[in-house]
Amino acid sequence: METIDRKGGSALWHQIGEILAADIAAGTFASGTKLPTEPELMQRFGVSRFTVRQALGHLEQRGLVRAEQGRGTFVHRGVLDYTLSKRTRFHKNLIEQGFEPGGELLVHEIVPATEPVAAYLKIAIGAPVIHRRGVMTADGIPVELGDSYYPAERFPDFDKARLQHPTISAALASYGVTDYERLSTEIEARMPTADEARILRQPKSVPLLVTRKVDADTDGVPITYSESVWPAERTTFNLDLR
Amino acid sequence: METIDRKGGSALWHQIGEILAADIAAGTFASGTKLPTEPELMQRFGVSRFTVRQALGHLEQRGLVRAEQGRGTFVHRGVLDYTLSKRTRFHKNLIEQGFEPGGELLVHEIVPATEPVAAYLKIAIGAPVIHRRGVMTADGIPVELGDSYYPAERFPDFDKARLQHPTISAALASYGVTDYERLSTEIEARMPTADEARILRQPKSVPLLVTRKVDADTDGVPITYSESVWPAERTTFNLDLR
Repeated sequence: METIDRKGGSALWHQIGEILAADIAAGTFASGTKLPTEPELMQRFGVSRFTVRQALGHLEQRGLVRAEQGRGTFVHRGVLDYTLSKRTRFHKNLIEQGFEPGGELLVHEIVPATEPVAAYLKIAIGAPVIHRRGVMTADGIPVELGDSYYPAERFPDFDKARLQHPTISAALASYGVTDYERLSTEIEARMPTADEARILRQPKSVPLLVTRKVDADTDGVPITYSESVWPAERTTFNLDLR
Repeated sequence: METIDRKGGSALWHQIGEILAADIAAGTFASGTKLPTEPELMQRFGVSRFTVRQALGHLEQRGLVRAEQGRGTFVHRGVLDYTLSKRTRFHKNLIEQGFEPGGELLVHEIVPATEPVAAYLKIAIGAPVIHRRGVMTADGIPVELGDSYYPAERFPDFDKARLQHPTISAALASYGVTDYERLSTEIEARMPTADEARILRQPKSVPLLVTRKVDADTDGVPITYSESVWPAERTTFNLDLR
């Protein structure tokens, strides 16, 4: 039986969840394989079925496993293999990998451009920008939390246009932006804030990948600046380099 | 005076170091600016000069600040802005940014190719590969810890060739590999192991960026597979996407 800390510290189900998550990360349980059964896990950790179920529920919330009715719990193919190229499109990327893309808008507001946003968009500091904060999902699991900024004068009533079109690309096309390309992409990593961990349904102890990108129209004029965070435990970026 | 935990927990100098590191990360102290003086920090945290010096020494070790004789302690320009393109060269990249590149070889051995290494290099599992583990530095600060694998049959006595040439590129040229290009690049992020944190002189609480890349000769034949980790608190990748 595996030793777990029964005094103080974190709850048993939480400790068991972390041990299984580490096993998944280390490849001990490969993607697509079945996890040990509930009785096996009860035996391994010396805990009740209820505790095992709590641990598995926690892993499912994090998008690391998927329970299949009557068949058991499977390691989720999980990791998003996300190609970054000059022509990156979130929707298309996910569909090509067999994920169902989704998303939820958390903030839509018009604000004055801060210094970094103005620099990325090549507009005046303080000029009005549309700020949209949203969480993007793959099969219902959060994979990206992003803040995007658009020059407000160029895209009046963008919120309405976005509602009328299935994707950002289609909404932009309604303003005559028939095509756009990456102007710049930066990647960093850092720990999540409490809010980010909650929205992305991951522990605060798991790092985030950070992307900062500018998209430009065919004349090279910036149309969006976005800063996004991605749960590192379920993201691999594949670079299409020049 | 700022409140710090004087009972149990971590040492005072360590807590102060973490507070200042967070200030630097948040941009409160911008790159190139001078940190508050030792008396100011003694006042702010209510600690001795010795404790302040320990904290600053710790930050200097991590590459976040640099003490300049008689002038004070400055926030290091620090962050490595590393361009990833098909023609990425570590040496050239650092020199273009005004850093002095350096490195230390930690392991050189010939081992049988594991399944992933064989897959990346497109050779048979178990075929002999040269494994080199090394730490790369910018102005003496560790910025990359990498494991590289070369097909041993193609590069006999690679250790000797490497010693006779200033860069990897030059050593490869001595085998007739006059040019090479990126075939694939993956980026992830994760927390460091204790060993990685020690070698990269960073806390275990700061994540790493992970790169996995394959370089190929002009015929598209893989010549190296490398897996590297980079301290996230001092690394930004800039992608040159196609």
